[in-house]
Order: sequence, then C-alpha cells, then structure tokens
Amino acid sequence: MTNKVKDKAGRVPAADPFGTADFERIFHPRRIVVAGVSSEGFSYGGALLKSLQAMGFEGEILPVNPRGGTFSGLPVFPSVEEIPGSVDFAVIAVAAKAVPAVLEVCRLKGAAGAEIMSSGFSETGTPEGKALENEIREIAARGIRVIGPNCFGIYCPRSGLTYLPNPDLPRESGPVAFLSQSGGMASDFANAGKWMGLRFSKTVSYGNGADLREAELLRYFREDGETGVIALYIEGVGDGDAFFRELRAAARKKPVVVLKGGLSEAGGRSVASHTASMGGSGRIWRSILRQAGAVQVEDMTEMAEACLAFSLLPKRAVRGISVTGGGGALGIAACDAAESMGIAVPPLGDGVRKEVLALLPRSGASAANPIDVANPYTPPETLKRILGIAAREDGIDLQIMVFLLHHFKHIALTEGKPIAEVVPCAAFADSMADVVRETGKPVCIVLPNTKRGIEDLDIVALHARARQAFLERGLPVFDEIRNALRAVGHMNRYYGGKEGNP
Amino acid sequence: MTNKVKDKAGRVPAADPFGTADFERIFHPRRIVVAGVSSEGFSYGGALLKSLQAMGFEGEILPVNPRGGTFSGLPVFPSVEEIPGSVDFAVIAVAAKAVPAVLEVCRLKGAAGAEIMSSGFSETGTPEGKALENEIREIAARGIRVIGPNCFGIYCPRSGLTYLPNPDLPRESGPVAFLSQSGGMASDFANAGKWMGLRFSKTVSYGNGADLREAELLRYFREDGETGVIALYIEGVGDGDAFFRELRAAARKKPVVVLKGGLSEAGGRSVASHTASMGGSGRIWRSILRQAGAVQVEDMTEMAEACLAFSLLPKRAVRGISVTGGGGALGIAACDAAESMGIAVPPLGDGVRKEVLALLPRSGASAANPIDVANPYTPPETLKRILGIAAREDGIDLQIMVFLLHHFKHIALTEGKPIAEVVPCAAFADSMADVVRETGKPVCIVLPNTKRGIEDLDIVALHARARQAFLERGLPVFDEIRNALRAVGHMNRYYGGKEGNP
Repeated sequence: MTNKVKDKAGRVPAADPFGTADFERIFHPRRIVVAGVSSEGFSYGGALLKSLQAMGFEGEILPVNPRGGTFSGLPVFPSVEEIPGSVDFAVIAVAAKAVPAVLEVCRLKGAAGAEIMSSGFSETGTPEGKALENEIREIAARGIRVIGPNCFGIYCPRSGLTYLPNPDLPRESGPVAFLSQSGGMASDFANAGKWMGLRFSKTVSYGNGADLREAELLRYFREDGETGVIALYIEGVGDGDAFFRELRAAARKKPVVVLKGGLSEAGGRSVASHTASMGGSGRIWRSILRQAGAVQVEDMTEMAEACLAFSLLPKRAVRGISVTGGGGALGIAACDAAESMGIAVPPLGDGVRKEVLALLPRSGASAANPIDVANPYTPPETLKRILGIAAREDGIDLQIMVFLLHHFKHIALTEGKPIAEVVPCAAFADSMADVVRETGKPVCIVLPNTKRGIEDLDIVALHARARQAFLERGLPVFDEIRNALRAVGHMNRYYGGKEGNP
Repeated sequence: MTNKVKDKAGRVPAADPFGTADFERIFHPRRIVVAGVSSEGFSYGGALLKSLQAMGFEGEILPVNPRGGTFSGLPVFPSVEEIPGSVDFAVIAVAAKAVPAVLEVCRLKGAAGAEIMSSGFSETGTPEGKALENEIREIAARGIRVIGPNCFGIYCPRSGLTYLPNPDLPRESGPVAFLSQSGGMASDFANAGKWMGLRFSKTVSYGNGADLREAELLRYFREDGETGVIALYIEGVGDGDAFFRELRAAARKKPVVVLKGGLSEAGGRSVASHTASMGGSGRIWRSILRQAGAVQVEDMTEMAEACLAFSLLPKRAVRGISVTGGGGALGIAACDAAESMGIAVPPLGDGVRKEVLALLPRSGASAANPIDVANPYTPPETLKRILGIAAREDGIDLQIMVFLLHHFKHIALTEGKPIAEVVPCAAFADSMADVVRETGKPVCIVLPNTKRGIEDLDIVALHARARQAFLERGLPVFDEIRNALRAVGHMNRYYGGKEGNP
C-alpha cells in the first residue's frame, strides 16, 4: 500500500495524469499478452483471444495460464515472466486479487499499456475493491498505462484489437473515435455502427477508469489525425475541471458528441454500482456540455446518427432542405420535424417547380417541396433528374430522398420473383451519388420500413442490402425522416446554424 | 348544382352531419360493388378487388366496367344499374368526373355507404375539383354515406375489407380503431401494427372527408363495443367545435391517441395540397388535445406503441417499475428515461434484494433495481423467479424485462447450430406469462437489437420470432426501453398518474 495523499473518493492520484502514453503501441501492438485464458470452460481471456484471431489481428498473441499447454493453436506461457523478450500490450482477465501482480510484471516486460477486463474493484463499493484499484493506479504511475478495470478494452480496426466479446467487427477504419465508460455501450455502439455505416479510428471502453480516462483520451483524440469526430459515453468524470477543459479544447477542433448516462436520481444510484462514478443533475450537465461546445444526445441511436451525419456530410450548417418521396403524410411529417429543428423546407420557385412537375404523374403528385412523386416505382433516372433540378434552389443546402421499398413486394409477387431481383438498389444508389457529384449538395437517404414481421423478412433483408448500397457510395442512411433531421439539427448546432428546439 | 348556403370553405354542408349511418352494413357488407376495375394494365379498382380476394372477404364482390367480361374470375357488370338486387357498399375508383353519377346509382341500389378512392377533388385546389366534391356531398346528404374521396378506404379484419393496396393484413380483430385522413398513414399504421402486435376493430382512411369524417366517426367508435382504444391521424378538422366535443366525449370513455400532422408552417402548406384541410399552430393544438383529455403523440411509432400499451396493459396508472436485464448502461438509461416520464424505479427492499441476489452470479450482477443479471444466457426459470420476487415490492406496478438475444449468436456459432435452435423463445415467453399470471402485475418485454446488418439477418429473424412468441402470450414488446417507458408515460397521463416531461 501507499503513503500518498488520497483524494475525496479515497483514490491515489496518478503521478502524472497527462503522462506520455505511447498510444501508438497501445492501439497497434505487435506483441500482446493475454493473461487468463483457460481451456476448461469459458474464460474472458480465452474469449478475447479467440476474438482477436477471428478479427485477423496480425501481431503475436501470447496467452498465459499457470497450467501451460496450448490454447486455440497457440503455446500457453505459465507466467508473463516466462515470455521471451519484451511485449507491447497486455489483456488482463485474471481474478481481481491477482491483477496487480500480473500488471506489474507486464510493466517490467516493457508493455506500454494493459486493458484489465476483470471486475471486482471500486465498483463493488468494498474497501478491498478500492484498495485493489489503488494498487493498480500505483503500478500505472510507474509507467504502464491502464485501461479499465471492469471494461471491454480497445477496438481498433487498423490493428485488429477488439472488444470482449466481439469477433466480427469491421477491420475498415473511419473517422469516429469512441470513448465509453460502459463496456456494454461500447460493444453495442460498435455493432450498431457496423450496419449503420459508422467506421471507427480507435475506440476505448475504459470502465472504472483507474488510470487512462475521459480527459486524457479527449486530448489524444483531439490531436489524432485519423479521428474526425469523437463520441463519448460517460456516467461520471474523474477530474471535472480537466474534463471540461479537454472537452472544450476538443470540441473547438472537431465535433464531440456526448451521451451522459445517469442524469436521474435512480440512474445516478446505478452509476455508482456500475462504474463507481459520481453522476450529476441533468440541468447542470446540459449547461456544462453546451458551454463546452459539445453536442449532447439522449440515447445510443441518436449518438450513432449524429456521428453518421458528422462523418459523411459536408462540414457546414444546413439552412434549408428538399424532401422527395411518396406520400403526403410523410412529407408533412418531414416539414413538422424540420421546423422543430430550425431547418427550413422552402417552397420551390415557379420555374423549378414546373420543371419538376413535368417529370411527375398528373394525378396525386406535388412539386411544392416536399416533392411527392406519387409512385413508389419512379425510375432512378427520373429521381436523379428531380433532385438535380431541385438542387438549383439557393435555399436548399441538403436533399432528403425517401425510398418506400416495401411497395416492390407487390411487383415481386406479381412477377413471381424474389424482391431483391425487382428492386434496382444499385441504380437507385448510383443515381443519388450522381446527384451529389453533379450538384455539389449532399443527399440523405431515408429507408422507412413498416413491414418487419416474420412473413416480410425478405423486405427486411432488402432494406439491409439497400442500406449497404447507399453507404458504399458515401450516402448516409436513416430509418426515419425525423432521425435524419435530428442528426442534421446536431450538425447545425455544432457548425453554428440556427438553433431549433428538438 | 345546389342552391344551398355554402360554408366558408365553399362547401355544401351535409344535410344531417350526424345522420344515421348504417355502420354495420358499411363495415360488414355482404354485397360490395367495385366500380373501376380494368383488365388492361393497373387499375386501383382491380388492385383493391384482388386484395379483397386475397384477404378472404366472404361477401359477394361485384366488379363493374363498361366493357364487361370477367375480372379475376368474376363476371364484370357493364354498369352498377345492371347488378341484380340491392348492394350494401361500394368501392369507387373511376375518374373523378365520373364519380358523382356512379355514387348516385349506388345510392339508388340501396348501398349504405361508398368509399371513393379516386383523387381529383378539393385537394387539387381547382374550382372543378371543389365543385365535384360538392356534388358528392349533395348525393351523400340524400342517404348514402361517403368515405373519401382521395382515400384508401376501410380495413376491417372481421369482414375482410382492406385498404388499397394491402392484400395481407391480419383477419384477427382487436381493440384498436384507427381514423386517418391520410391513406399512406392508414396503410403504414396497419402494416406496422401487424408485426408490433396491434389488432384492429375497424379502421377508416377518410381522405378529404367530404361526408363522414373525424367527429362523427369518433362518436361511432366511442360507442363501438369492439373498440377499446381510438387512434387518430388528422391534418385538419371539418367542424372544430364538433371535433372537440366528440373528442372529449370519446376520451372520457376510452383512450384516444392523436397524431396531428402539419403543425409547422411548411407542414400546413402541404396539408392543403394533401387533404385540403386547414392546419393550425402547434401550441393551439397541444392545448386543445390536452383539454379534451386526448393523448398526443409525435410520430407513427409513438402512436403504435401507445396503442399497444393501452391494448395489452391493465387500465391503470403505473407508479413504479422494476427493470431486469443485462448491462449497467442499459439499466442507467432505463432510470433516466423513467424519471423523465415521472415513473419511479424504486430500490428493492433489503429482503427482496437478498433473495434476488442469491439467484445471480457473484461477479458483475446487481439486484438494486435495475436488476443486472450479468449473464445473457440466464435460464427462463431463473428469470421467472427473479421477477416473481421483485413483484412483491409494493411500489412496483409493472416489470420491464430486457432480453439481449444477439448474444446467443456466440452459442450458435460454437455449437454449429442455427441461432433459432439455441434460443428458448417459447420458454422465455412462457416464463414471463407465468410471472404476469402469478403476480398479477404486468410485464413489458424489450428486445433491443444492435445487429441488423446483412451478415446478421438470422438475428433479425430471431427477434421477429421472439416478438411473436411474447405477443402470442399477450405480452407487449418494444424495441427499446425508452419506447416502452414513453408508452407507459402515455398510460399514466390518460389514467391520471403523475405527469412527467417526456
């Protein structure tokens, strides 16, 4: 134990809270220890090791278990000491009381960092748990940076590091960094991001945050060239002043999207037992985040959609939009949602309206904006022409195209073909990508699906395929118009557009 | 044309706005005319006729086209006059200018009502369109009740009447009535309701509402014994005073859930060209709906979820809930959402907590409420025992059970089986139904799915099957905890519980 002065929460402060972590070796290790694999039954270490293999991690994996032997085709070292040479990073998934000793040896073996997946530390609320966590902090202060304990670790597409228990996350990198106090949220966000079209630079589930946590990670991601937008799930913060300072500095340089969990009384109580953090009232947090220039969201879907918009849309505010699709009620809903976000849906000028109207059926269509094409089977080429014309309006900065693909099931049934064969997904996607290229104005795709039952799983699959076709061409896709507009509203708040009341 | 005094909108008022419609013959016709079928190419009448056949409509279908012949196996009458005997109801899908003559003949043939799917009336904004709609109103006033024009008609599960173009809606009846000014919204709501577990008594897409519309239909559904909850999508109303009076009277007797489209400036503009109604400001509408005791919702999903809660949960307010599932962040999100809806998540008392804790793994679990079972594979029997114990808390009126089914994919991959074979959907559903029966307290199921991509369609299908298993046992299912709590919040507002700030 230590003689150092403890802070109010009874924690030993780290020697240098903004120490010189070797993040390159932490995120892209060449030699990685996995301490706590077991060939008998399930073990977190073993599950993570297999996930690393499934991800195609190219570095050397060094499993450790006192019994030795082999695990998943690899020789198991009886202890970290017996690994020849130095190591870059360690995954520690042994029982809580054994963690400090393993961590210390990893430090002596030259590891730049370690992620501790084990639980049983300060989140238990027990003196034993807190003491163990203090031991970790002391070792960390001597030169090994710690992620966790009580976390899912790092997912880094470029190196193939992955969270427990995720063997199937994308290896493709992208602009989104994610810092999460919760392992479940980290895993959920990565999985949701996979099909929603988010691609990540580096992400960290830091759990109790005994050493590395929000403030220092914000500083790192602010300067990280791979990262264009930072998302953050926090339940509480370690050093409030440092957090605010780093948040504001990061938000000045790139969008920071924050989901704060535990704003309620009961939520705050749960935070204590989840990651041993202090919560805080909703009003105070809203004010802090606004002052720091961060974008606050209310749930994971909203966070993912905001990150999607920040990833794929031009870095500027949107004054007005066009909305094109089928159905009067959908158009009306779009207008209502847009107004609540402070986004205009300007009527098309006479000349433009007439040109658009000439491309539409005589009955049931409208070219006022929203543009009701009155026919779910409108060909891609026609849609391309409509959006090409509408883009000429000065007040329109972004176009929203709503596809109601479930209507194609009627054609599929009539023609006796699978629905995938009658929907020109690639042509729709090409036509929209052409619009963006030719007009210089972005297009958001909306794919609502009212048919999700057992007998309509072909329609569900079709939507997944259509989404992928649009995403492959760089077009963001949303489930509902409201969601697209909410994301655009966040862009406007960040880039200084007119502020609405979402 | 007529000599009657017209109202401000230039419409001839109906002779008796609350006339004695024979709704039994309108919703359950034995002989139905379909005017406007065509064997050459697509026709709305032909599509509706085929949909009636696909639905298994048991009455006699009488297609009409001047050219005669046969259509979809039925003899086609050259005119309505030539149909022998009287008829109950008519579907009219001929060109707008031909509609009045066909309607008049249907009236003479004794039809109690007609739905006019054709467009080209007051929604065009032209003098011709308005004049045609006035002609319809005059004929209606002489004794045939009209639904439409510019609508998708009636969907009534018991009789097999269905909207254009919906051949595959359920024939099973239920407590939800739906009145919709928009055909697209009517169709979308019925389709969403199908897999979400809503079952309908009778539903009406009334479009321009030349004759029958919101106020009179509200009065009918207020008294309809089959209807337990009324949902309403309106863009504008005909007679504001009558609407408010009937809305208040209906809401006194059963929950009325209202989605008002066109609250924004641009939305109001679109309303005019969609269903020729007047919109109105958001603030005024919110006040009117609150005064009337109606439940206001912001979008179709929220409307469907509110109706699901009103359909399947006990008819009373919910003070406090328990939340059981996996993952600290999910539990925290549940607390935050509950508090914003004014719903308590009370800590479990010591005795109850210890009993629950004894059923949970030693590491990572929590029995504080939320109850974190810390293991996605917790057996149905254990979950049943946990919820059975938690239900003993006085402050808990409803229990929320969150299943994270995607975790089973790991087991499926390990065991080399399809995921459907490793998830005990029926046992999960049985265990939760047992809890409700044994404790007398309702359970809401939440099935979040973060895996919806092309390579995870088996997980998507699993969720559809699991949802059905719960619904078959009368348990409402929601995608996210927030959605479940929002729906419960609406119940609380209606049944007089503590009001929150959703």
